[in-house]
Order: sequence, then structure tokens, then C-alpha cells
Amino acid sequence: MRIEVICTGDEVLTGKIVNTNFSYISQKLEDFGLSLIWETTVGDDRDSLLLAFQLAGQRADAVIVNGGLGPTVDDLSQEIAARAAGVELALNEEWLARMEAYFTKRSRVMPPNNIKQAMLPAGAEVLDNPVGTACGFAVTIGKARFYFTPGVPRELRRMLEDQIVPRLLAKSGKQTAVFLKRFHSYGIGESHADTLLAGVEALAPDGSVKLGFRAHYPQLETKLTARGSDMDDIRKKLAPVEAEVRKRFGNFILAEDDRTLEGVVLSELEQCKGTLAIVESFTAGQIAARIAHLPGAEKIVRRGIVARELCEVCAAAGLADVPAAITRETAEAVARAAQQLTGATHALAVLIDLDEGVDRIEFAGTVCLAIATAGHAASRRSRIVGGRDWVRLGAVEMGLDCLRRYLQGLPVTERIDFEKVE
Amino acid sequence: MRIEVICTGDEVLTGKIVNTNFSYISQKLEDFGLSLIWETTVGDDRDSLLLAFQLAGQRADAVIVNGGLGPTVDDLSQEIAARAAGVELALNEEWLARMEAYFTKRSRVMPPNNIKQAMLPAGAEVLDNPVGTACGFAVTIGKARFYFTPGVPRELRRMLEDQIVPRLLAKSGKQTAVFLKRFHSYGIGESHADTLLAGVEALAPDGSVKLGFRAHYPQLETKLTARGSDMDDIRKKLAPVEAEVRKRFGNFILAEDDRTLEGVVLSELEQCKGTLAIVESFTAGQIAARIAHLPGAEKIVRRGIVARELCEVCAAAGLADVPAAITRETAEAVARAAQQLTGATHALAVLIDLDEGVDRIEFAGTVCLAIATAGHAASRRSRIVGGRDWVRLGAVEMGLDCLRRYLQGLPVTERIDFEKVE
Repeated sequence: MRIEVICTGDEVLTGKIVNTNFSYISQKLEDFGLSLIWETTVGDDRDSLLLAFQLAGQRADAVIVNGGLGPTVDDLSQEIAARAAGVELALNEEWLARMEAYFTKRSRVMPPNNIKQAMLPAGAEVLDNPVGTACGFAVTIGKARFYFTPGVPRELRRMLEDQIVPRLLAKSGKQTAVFLKRFHSYGIGESHADTLLAGVEALAPDGSVKLGFRAHYPQLETKLTARGSDMDDIRKKLAPVEAEVRKRFGNFILAEDDRTLEGVVLSELEQCKGTLAIVESFTAGQIAARIAHLPGAEKIVRRGIVARELCEVCAAAGLADVPAAITRETAEAVARAAQQLTGATHALAVLIDLDEGVDRIEFAGTVCLAIATAGHAASRRSRIVGGRDWVRLGAVEMGLDCLRRYLQGLPVTERIDFEKVE
Repeated sequence: MRIEVICTGDEVLTGKIVNTNFSYISQKLEDFGLSLIWETTVGDDRDSLLLAFQLAGQRADAVIVNGGLGPTVDDLSQEIAARAAGVELALNEEWLARMEAYFTKRSRVMPPNNIKQAMLPAGAEVLDNPVGTACGFAVTIGKARFYFTPGVPRELRRMLEDQIVPRLLAKSGKQTAVFLKRFHSYGIGESHADTLLAGVEALAPDGSVKLGFRAHYPQLETKLTARGSDMDDIRKKLAPVEAEVRKRFGNFILAEDDRTLEGVVLSELEQCKGTLAIVESFTAGQIAARIAHLPGAEKIVRRGIVARELCEVCAAAGLADVPAAITRETAEAVARAAQQLTGATHALAVLIDLDEGVDRIEFAGTVCLAIATAGHAASRRSRIVGGRDWVRLGAVEMGLDCLRRYLQGLPVTERIDFEKVE
């Protein structure tokens, strides 16, 4: 089945906003084993829209159109859809009532120009939008079924998942039950992960599980797309693959599905009734910024300390003697001091010794980090190469992931792909 | 002149990477008064590429193609460009020599598959790439001139600015000297800015200066695109408009051109031989993370302190008596204590009293911030509505901007558009 996407709107065409709706749509379809073949972006311009609809209607079986369903004069999707489909616009009384109720619930009067949002091409199938006033709809243009969606990301997401994906799966004749299992890891590069997981797909029958990756440094997302007759069938097919991925990735899996590294750290601390102090240097507050603002963190993250110079780090952490250099022992001493100073059960210290000179791709930093509790400490040393930002991002993740490992009773010194072996 | 863009590559089509190259190209052309009319994304697929080239060649006068110039088998741009132009591929000896020199300089041997990067459609015009091995080129397909560019952002940028924009300006018959003047502000919304600056374009003769905005909350970028016969001519035309924008925006302009808010704060502190301590609560390290990692900040940002609970904030800042609530006076007391504790010349304290309950669009927070020096303090109180993230982002910017204002001798309490009037 040939699927195309048409993105509309001057804001997207002029680059004023980056088109994240498109990558969202495409990734979501991929998750369900559906692939896009073509994407077109045009502005709020009648001729361009009409031509884009006509061309896609000649080439594709299904087309998702994003944007142009709003109440203002530059929202043209319904008008041009009707023209391309060769029908008139007609008022959808049901949607008008829905909109009026929407405004009443919010103690507001519906502005008259919102009526435009209930004008749909005659005979269009309504695609429900439970979170906004833009009415989605489907019509046939040429040989393709067109699905019109709102530009507001939240509304698009809901409509795509609830209304459009099921229709596309039915249309494609694929089994309709699809499930996406995700693993998040830190420390394994994409090509290494690909090698590590070679053959896991074969553990499920008939190619019913497909493996994919999405790298966003420093984390890697590993995706298993499973297909079956129903969820029980999917779970059965997925189980051996899932178990094998867990076995091969081992300690490197930091979270699964919608969970995040910082969320896992927070809930591990919550479970052991722990509290946390963080000391950081060149990461400059980024470690604290990942975790301390989360709901619930106000009771757990006791204090974050940022200082760039080692003597200031020591002063801030309450360490009287300033060590000569940044080493594992220094990081342990700083973490221990911070733990005692703040009375937190756990302290994480991430200290970085940066190379001299200007930023460049070979620019590196040596990370020394430690985790201290009342009677114990663990530490690691690592060298990260790749420019100032790369070192900083890598150190943030390494600090949080070592803390996760420590809280889960795993080794904090396991080799990762992003460090330089010396 | 009709200009189109074609983005190529499976990574972009499947949404694995968000297409920031496209928004970059489109914004850059807008900066020079050139507008895009159509964008197409296709994967690494011969049939799709050929069709995309043919269709654009029928519609447009100029087409920028991005991606597909690499050395691997899925890089197909040269091959399909040649087919669409009806010519053969031919080895460009000059580019081959350039590539060999590139590898020699890096003490590496050129892999044989890189030769592919020197195979260009016969008769193609070379577009120089001084920062990589992908050779840009221009050919004519249908009625359009096609410009082929690399997918690596750094290489694309250089080629677009140095090679393609001048060719497009010449082709469009526009005066070739163009200059972009930019102002960064915080506290004025886009529509308010539009009203404030009404009529400024008319201060330059013959519509030679065009006004535009790019909002990225909480900052707003105001752009003046000026055109003239040469830079002297442009400066003369731009001067009255520039002066008027500065006059109408006044204290709200936080930086111009490539400068940033955090960079301005840092250089103001540098100039007065100052040092800085930062105390933050719900912003959770984000204020420190904006400034403390910058080159040179290691001598200036003395310490950052993060704590979520008021009693912890006070303990960390060295304030013995914990005030009952977060007020302007509390923020001043915390800032004063932190200034004394750290010995910094300046201390910024940004404390936030968050509403109760779950995150929602009406969720708000009260920001109390203060700046203290040895003998003086300034403070402000502000209420920001719009959800947890919105409050946090807004408070980070407000903190840094008030510090900028303080350092520049400007009032820190001026009304902004993003706060709720109570």
C-alpha cells in the first residue's frame, strides 16, 4: 500500500517551525509496520494545495494531510479537499453541536468564525477529535483515501492513533493487532546493538516481530514491533524475543517503554526511602535539571551543587582539603562530603577535567564520578572525545546511569562504546 | 522565481531524524528575500527520486536537492540527476584530487568507494564544499536549475550560503547585497512586537528593509532584511530603521545578531570583574546550565545551588532563619546570604512557589527573584501561567534577563507580556 503525507501551512514551509509533526507521523506508521513513500509540504495557497492533492491522489492509496483545519481564513484544507473531490462543502450539524458544547463547557461563547470548522466536503467521513475543535475527516480524491488531520500536535497524535492507524491497517489487510515494545539503553552504539541482537527476530514465528533502532545520543532506543491476531497472540510471539534482548543487553537497559532514566532513578530512591545530593562541574546543572523538577522530586532531590573550579567544588561540598587533581578518589571524597553535608542518603559527584584549547571534534574530557552513601562509595573514570557539547551530554548520562546502576546493585564500571580506551 | 526543495533519504522519510535541514534552508532563503513554494521528501529509492526531479523540473525555476551525495550504495543523487538530465556520469578528476588530498592531510588512505563522490553528471557545474568530501553540483533538469547539496548540516550550510544563495540572487535579478540584522528580546510577544514596530519599514526607501519575527518562547527574534547595491548603501538604508527598533523595544533588547543572553551576562560580569552565585528551586539547575559551561565561565560563575524545598534553599545558601513563605523579601534574603557565603560579587536567587495539583494548561507558578551585591539588592515578583514546563522555561529566562538588566543599570521590574496581572 502506497501511503503519502502532505504537510500544509506557511509556518512549516517557511521553516518558522520545524516539522516535527511529519517525523511523528512517519515514526508512528513505522511502529505499525506501515511505510511512507512520499511527503509534500506546501503553504496556505489554493493552487499549491489543489495540485498537491491531485498529484498524491494519482500516485497513492492513502494520504494523510496535516494542518489547515483551523477557523481562520488561511486554513484552506476543507475547501480544497471539496474542490479536489468534486463535491460541495456542507455544514455538519453534529460537529457544530459538539463545538458549541465545547465552548459552553469552558464558559465561553463560540466565535462565529468557528462555524467554518464544521464545514466538511459533502459525504466526508468524520474522524473524531476529542481534544479540540478541528474536525478530522476522510474523503476520496483520485484513487486515494485522504485523511485530514489538525496541525496542533496533541490533536494530531490522538487522531492518528485512535482513528487513522486502525483504518490504514484494515485497508492494508494486515493483521490489526500490533504492539510496540521499547528498550532504552545507554553505552551501546547503534551498530554494536545491531550486531549484539543479530538473529533475535528469528525467535518469533513468521517474521511477526521486527527489530528497529532510534539513536539519540547518548541514549539508544531499541524497538520490537510485534504483529498478531490479538494481544494474547502478540505476547506469546514477543516473549522469547523480549527475553533475549534483555539477556543480551543485560545491565545496559536503563528503562523500558515510556519510562525514563531519571524516572527510574527517582523511583529507585523512592523505594529505598532515599534522598539525593548532586555535585557537578562542567555539566553545570544539567544533571540536576534532568531530575530535580520532576513531580515528587521535591521530597527526594535534596540539593544540587554546581561549581567549575575544583577548589569551589570542594568548598561547596564541605570538603576541607582540596585534592591536587580530579581523580576517582577526589570524586569519592567530594561525594562523601556532600552526603554528610546535606544528610542525603546518596550523593552523586560528577567531576570533569577538560582538555585545554578551543572546541573541536577531537576535544575531550576526563570524567571522574562517584556515588557515596553513609558507609560506602563506588566510582569510575572515563574519557569522552567529541567536542565540548558531546563531553557534557555524555557525562550527564553517565552520571545518571551509574547512579541507576548503583541503586539497582549493578556494576558502575562496565565498559561503554562512547568512551576512549587509554 | 519559483523555488522548490527536495529532501532525500530514508532516515528523513521514516522520521528517524527530524528534518531540520529543510527549515534551515527555508529560513536562510527567507533571510535573503527568497521564498520557497514547494517541498518534497522522498527516500533512497530510484523511481521516487527520478519522479521527484522530473516533477520539480516541470514546475520550478530553481530546485535545491539535499542529501544522497555520500559514498555508500544508497546515495543515489548523482546517478538519478544524470538520468533526469539525460546525460552520463563522468569522473571529475579535479574533485578526485581534492578528496585524495583531504584524506592525505588526515593521514588516512581514501577508501575506494569514495571515488563515487567524484562521479558527476557530464557538464555539471561544481559547487565547492570546503568542509567535506561530498561534491555539490548544479545541473539543468526540465526548465529548472538544480542545486545538489550534502546532507551533513555543516556542509550544507556552508554550500548554501557561499555557493547557492548568490546564484539564486543573481538568477532572480535581485540586487545581490543583502544583510540581515537581528535583535533578541525577552518579554514582548510576537503580536505585541508587530504592533510596536508598525511603520518602521517605511523609514527605509523603496521597501529596501523587510521586517520579520521568529518566536521561540521565551525569546523573540526580530529580523530586518536589508537590500542595497553594496554594504555601504545597505548600512545607510538600515540605520534609521535599526535606530527606531532600538528606541521602541528599549530595555527589552537583550542581545543583537549572534550574541546570546547568557553571553551578554557573562561579558557584563567580566567587564566589572564580577563573579556570580546562582540559587534556584523549580528551575532545578537550568539557569546554571545556560551559563556555567560556557568558555570563560569557570572564572566567573562561582557556584550554583539547587534545592526544591525552601528550608533546603536557605540551608544551602547559608541563611539561618527560614522565612515562612516565598516572597520578594525571601528572595532578597537568600540572594544576600548566597552572596556572602560564596564571596561572589553578584548573587541571583530565583525561587518559585508552584500551584498545587496536576500539570495542565492553567497551571501557574509565582516567581520571586532577587539580585544581591555587597551593598544592594533588587527584586521582582511575577506570576506565570501555562503548565509546569512553561513556568520553568519562563522563570529561567526571567532570572537571566533581570540579571542582565541589573548589570546594565536598567529596571528589573518592567512589565512583560508573559506574566499574569493580578
